[in-house]
Amino acid sequence: MSIETAAILVIGNEILSGRTQDINIAYMAKGLAGHGIQLREARIVPDVESVIIDTVNALRSENTYVFTTGGIGPTHDDITADCIAKAFDVNIDIHSEAEKRLLAFWKERDIQPNSDRLRMARIPSGAQLIDNPVSVAPGFQKENVYVMAGVPRIMQAMFDSILSTLEQGAIIESVSVTCDLGEGTIAAPLRALQERFPDVDLGSYPGKMDGKFRVTLVGRSHDKKKLEQIDIQLRELIKHAGGSILV
Amino acid sequence: MSIETAAILVIGNEILSGRTQDINIAYMAKGLAGHGIQLREARIVPDVESVIIDTVNALRSENTYVFTTGGIGPTHDDITADCIAKAFDVNIDIHSEAEKRLLAFWKERDIQPNSDRLRMARIPSGAQLIDNPVSVAPGFQKENVYVMAGVPRIMQAMFDSILSTLEQGAIIESVSVTCDLGEGTIAAPLRALQERFPDVDLGSYPGKMDGKFRVTLVGRSHDKKKLEQIDIQLRELIKHAGGSILV
Repeated sequence: MSIETAAILVIGNEILSGRTQDINIAYMAKGLAGHGIQLREARIVPDVESVIIDTVNALRSENTYVFTTGGIGPTHDDITADCIAKAFDVNIDIHSEAEKRLLAFWKERDIQPNSDRLRMARIPSGAQLIDNPVSVAPGFQKENVYVMAGVPRIMQAMFDSILSTLEQGAIIESVSVTCDLGEGTIAAPLRALQERFPDVDLGSYPGKMDGKFRVTLVGRSHDKKKLEQIDIQLRELIKHAGGSILV
Repeated sequence: MSIETAAILVIGNEILSGRTQDINIAYMAKGLAGHGIQLREARIVPDVESVIIDTVNALRSENTYVFTTGGIGPTHDDITADCIAKAFDVNIDIHSEAEKRLLAFWKERDIQPNSDRLRMARIPSGAQLIDNPVSVAPGFQKENVYVMAGVPRIMQAMFDSILSTLEQGAIIESVSVTCDLGEGTIAAPLRALQERFPDVDLGSYPGKMDGKFRVTLVGRSHDKKKLEQIDIQLRELIKHAGGSILV
């Protein structure tokens, strides 16, 4: 099975100014992991045309898929669709199907179309629409770049529908064991275990649980059989070092 | 006043696998904004040496400051300090002051030093320590690159102490008004306002409040006087378009 890779590009001054806590990256990261697609990188960039164009072009040449969020609304600061058209060097114009959907949606709600609202129907040439079941204004897919809204509820609906169309890769499974030992106590046996299983990705994550510092050891691999062994080895390693397994 | 820029580099497979929701970027973004430093970019990369080295070198050449989080613990997957040394092409070895602090901390707690624990005292040549008031193991500053822990409580303490040492830039102030209009209704007058005030950054952010779709209009600028005008203009714009101001 081939290894498919992805990059995420979050577009928005509101994330870089600290106004908004991004939660889209973690949502997509989980979805991609569950689909066997390796997320290699995530970048957050401002609403600056040259930066968006250059970053999209860098990421799309290096990854199977690129997912962008943000900047596809009707206001003047929504410049993503135009940037994608420029990145691919294609025209951008009103997409008849997108326009049709929006006009029908507005008619039902007695909303008057105007040139700003219709900006949301502008789609780069050759792109396919991504449905928006929340507020209709579509995202789009241009080659390997998927362009989605930034509002989490809309982004999640768009992303879920995209994910089901992507080829499933080899899923990386994981095992995890949390203990009451410090990282310094388990570092040596964990390193030795990593050397015995070089193709399993072993990680150690300190954090707090019930107000106390705890360490979670995680093994990640495509190979379930190996992970079963890793699970046993991690538990023995903790007991042997005098610790208790908490989760 | 010169414009100081920053980039954030989050290092860690656990963010890209979706296991952990990053909250360090938003914390630093707010702090930088409050200090008048422009955050231009944030990147999340995996625990891969070549990627970390290349990204650090790209970001440090383009920004006044680079802040990294993650990968400075004692376990085999903590490779940030070594990567920074390689990025700067300098040696890395036990730092006597870092070692002294750690030995004293461990002695108090009856923790035995070992070679893995002492990895946390390895600091690239020529770097200055960044204090860790939580668990002692220091971060470090190498030229314009600040290397911090990934655990939020430790990162926050380190970042706060760094921030107070950085030259304060011109702070970008903001005004914001939330209304019950759709973005399509206010897009035209907002665009006109942006044209009248080209050096104010006007943004429109849709979201939910009390279960209903709302739009927050935000003006950002160094110029307080202009922002006072923008605040008045935004309120008039909303009223004129038939909307109510909610916040």
